[in-house]
Amino acid sequence: MTVEDTPGQQRLTRQLEFLLAVDALKRVSRASRITADNTAGGRRENSAEHSWHVALFARVLAEHANADVDVERVVTMLQIHDIVEIDVGDTPLHAEQDPHKSAKEAAAARRLFALLPADQGASMEAIWTEFESGNTNEARFARALDRLQPMLLNAHNDGGTWPEFAVTREQLYSRTGHIAEGSETLWSFCESMIDKAVAEGWVIEDPT
Amino acid sequence: MTVEDTPGQQRLTRQLEFLLAVDALKRVSRASRITADNTAGGRRENSAEHSWHVALFARVLAEHANADVDVERVVTMLQIHDIVEIDVGDTPLHAEQDPHKSAKEAAAARRLFALLPADQGASMEAIWTEFESGNTNEARFARALDRLQPMLLNAHNDGGTWPEFAVTREQLYSRTGHIAEGSETLWSFCESMIDKAVAEGWVIEDPT
Repeated sequence: MTVEDTPGQQRLTRQLEFLLAVDALKRVSRASRITADNTAGGRRENSAEHSWHVALFARVLAEHANADVDVERVVTMLQIHDIVEIDVGDTPLHAEQDPHKSAKEAAAARRLFALLPADQGASMEAIWTEFESGNTNEARFARALDRLQPMLLNAHNDGGTWPEFAVTREQLYSRTGHIAEGSETLWSFCESMIDKAVAEGWVIEDPT
Repeated sequence: MTVEDTPGQQRLTRQLEFLLAVDALKRVSRASRITADNTAGGRRENSAEHSWHVALFARVLAEHANADVDVERVVTMLQIHDIVEIDVGDTPLHAEQDPHKSAKEAAAARRLFALLPADQGASMEAIWTEFESGNTNEARFARALDRLQPMLLNAHNDGGTWPEFAVTREQLYSRTGHIAEGSETLWSFCESMIDKAVAEGWVIEDPT
């Protein structure tokens, strides 16, 4: 990757080092399964192809955001939101959560974005932090799509990770209900998906 | 995927059908190998994770385009450029080319984009066609990145597909030289990468 030593070439070298380093996201496995020709689902999804998929969700579904959003900021967020998993791995939504996960992910973000030229690294890290905080319309919508995408795969794959983790309706509502903060329309669709998942026996009905 | 029958809900249903259909791109295998902890390279890359990677190239490397480009149009192109491979498969750059490939890909584009609401489908298909034609600054830059990305993987993976397909320097120049139309800077970097690949014995020097 060494090119000659002008400032412009040093800048390109750093950009390419970053792009090669994030290739490792293709090796991070998620719990969700990709679709297959049958409804049993295929192999587990990796975080790079998930990032492609969910960034395309943003472009196709932007009209359903609760607020007018800067679609390109949402797409950028979703292109980079998971790269910290290169260092930290993916924690499935329905598995036990590591209380130190946020701190570990922030350290990974610092390491990875520091590979870039300083101006680009700072800008990318700010977008990543905005996604994590969930405090803007763009971040709320991006986080909604990040939850919707695996639900859609599960609903297509005979319940997918829901029966695998013995998920109950209440758990699903508490872990995905914030989709409504990004899009009431998409949350309303998710509610009908959850009703169907309970009826199919993929999600456990809580005792009343 | 059935939601109630208002026009808005029909629209959402079509958008989600499209997003589920393109999940199949994760099952399309390319010749290139992803990076690994060693320089032998990992498994073969699929076209969905390639699309994620190269769309991120656009965001990071936009400053090196020959002309001022609409970065978001370039990103969109690269998000969708390969979805026709769901029907047609990926043809490796250094393998024999099917003379009917363009017609088959155009038919695949029509089928897939027709899943979307008509306005969105037409707009996406226009962007896909623009990429294929390579006639705008955005398409020239997007096509340059689409060639650069596997070269970078090969250079990292002990030559990757170059020795696999017994590629010569002249072949590599004729198949990747159009990178210069999108970015002289990136092509200049590629030339130094090719020199190194020849020196390493990964690419065959043509007889003089």
